[in-house]
Amino acid sequence: MAGDHNPADGIAFVNGTYVPLAEASVPLVDRGFVRSDATYDVVHVWKGSFFRLGDHIERFQASMRGLRLSLPLSAGEIAWILTECVRRSGLRDAYVQMTCTRGIAPKGTRDPRLCENRFYAFAQPFVWIANEDQRRDGLKMIISSVQRIQPEALDPRLKNFHWLDLTMGIFEAYDRDAVTAVLSDRDGNVTEGAGFNVFTVRGGTLATPDHGVFEGMTRRTVIEMAAEIGLACALRPVSAGELRDADEIFITSTAGGIMPVTEIDGRILGNGRPGPVTQRIHDLYWDRQHAAGLFTAVDYRD
Amino acid sequence: MAGDHNPADGIAFVNGTYVPLAEASVPLVDRGFVRSDATYDVVHVWKGSFFRLGDHIERFQASMRGLRLSLPLSAGEIAWILTECVRRSGLRDAYVQMTCTRGIAPKGTRDPRLCENRFYAFAQPFVWIANEDQRRDGLKMIISSVQRIQPEALDPRLKNFHWLDLTMGIFEAYDRDAVTAVLSDRDGNVTEGAGFNVFTVRGGTLATPDHGVFEGMTRRTVIEMAAEIGLACALRPVSAGELRDADEIFITSTAGGIMPVTEIDGRILGNGRPGPVTQRIHDLYWDRQHAAGLFTAVDYRD
Repeated sequence: MAGDHNPADGIAFVNGTYVPLAEASVPLVDRGFVRSDATYDVVHVWKGSFFRLGDHIERFQASMRGLRLSLPLSAGEIAWILTECVRRSGLRDAYVQMTCTRGIAPKGTRDPRLCENRFYAFAQPFVWIANEDQRRDGLKMIISSVQRIQPEALDPRLKNFHWLDLTMGIFEAYDRDAVTAVLSDRDGNVTEGAGFNVFTVRGGTLATPDHGVFEGMTRRTVIEMAAEIGLACALRPVSAGELRDADEIFITSTAGGIMPVTEIDGRILGNGRPGPVTQRIHDLYWDRQHAAGLFTAVDYRD
Repeated sequence: MAGDHNPADGIAFVNGTYVPLAEASVPLVDRGFVRSDATYDVVHVWKGSFFRLGDHIERFQASMRGLRLSLPLSAGEIAWILTECVRRSGLRDAYVQMTCTRGIAPKGTRDPRLCENRFYAFAQPFVWIANEDQRRDGLKMIISSVQRIQPEALDPRLKNFHWLDLTMGIFEAYDRDAVTAVLSDRDGNVTEGAGFNVFTVRGGTLATPDHGVFEGMTRRTVIEMAAEIGLACALRPVSAGELRDADEIFITSTAGGIMPVTEIDGRILGNGRPGPVTQRIHDLYWDRQHAAGLFTAVDYRD
């Protein structure tokens, strides 16, 4: 490994070897880049342990099947590579990504069936999609005028890099003095934002969109926790109007956990501070990081 | 340049230098890969000359503006780099791609506004999206059950790598004993396929979808040629039913020009051979490659 890289900046696994993340790359002609023909998943490490590692790898494998991708790697081998990226980085809090690309078509063809699918992975410092102030005070969100890509074109449950709609939503948020955006579908129901699911709280009851969204692991965890504590949580269409009228809103992501939204389309929610239900879910989520059956400790010894 | 690469396999421009295409890569953490946050354009070289080089670069710049990307390169500088890729490759017939990615966000942020946008280019041997037999005998096409990504999510006129819908359409075509697929929108009108536009011929009149599609340069050239020879060409919605009932169908792409379709959803068109209007357009297109004002000769001397 090159001596001028700090392992804590990130370690990647590319072409069967571990390299500094800053030196990791994908071929310019891999369909994973030039056709965004790829799937991925992200798992996090918190205080030295993976959270729901097996669930993330299982979902990654389901995404691969859905896109007709396959790798000669078992779930155990993938877990081993991810763990090795984290171990070599030394990071106790990390954002860990696994990616499968279609690969490169043989010369003279464009047939995706003839590509050898490729595996890439990396561990980097934990990513917060909201900064510390935003997590404490709450995010300003807009409902973007950009629609989310429809499920009839691309099943959002198969995790993918088709993010230009989400990215243009972020630009629109900045234009409108907000920091993040949720996109709607053509029926005016909200879907998701750039790397997160959205929940509303109204009358002490949770709701989150049931379709047209990626089924995030943090979303799944919230649904499970709500059931355990007897908090009603409905999976159903959530209209833009309902979102604007919510008592509380929070977003969920592997990149940051549970994050409060305190302003939507310029309207301040409640007293402008993160609400009590959001706070409770937030605390439960972080308590749960080392719950039996959900965590996998990393052994950092050489 | 590495001695064990044949320049005729392709030359790329990455990070300000020319390298063998097989060695060209994009950083694993460039948003152009991990968020498909990029635009591109493709121009071809035929018999030593670019076709509509200025038009392609102008469209590339329009796509960048639409996605809030920018590069410190003028149209002339881009043309110079593309020409240099071709010259160094020695290729007389080439597929030439220019790409702009969002780049890498500074540590600790995800703000796309803070990324330095990056330019990548390459020239490789000319790509035919149909092989020689298919171009002579005609393609078997299906109307896919996958919908094309809707314009309200991503303007298809801004050329992008969001191709998973198109790619899954290709897999479906193979499953149904065809070789290519055109996708519909939610209203049942056809849109486009993987890297091509589609035209129908009925009663001696052309039609091609007017919206929800990338406005391809070969499509534009066909529209111009039709006007010149007094052949009616309508830009309007084209239903799936109309496509199935066409006298002739052809597809247009920088990667192959004008290519006949002779079977649609299992129905053989006409006598199963490329039709006369398609043949006429095909011949006109290739005659036009060196028309005044449309070509730019490459000077291959060192």
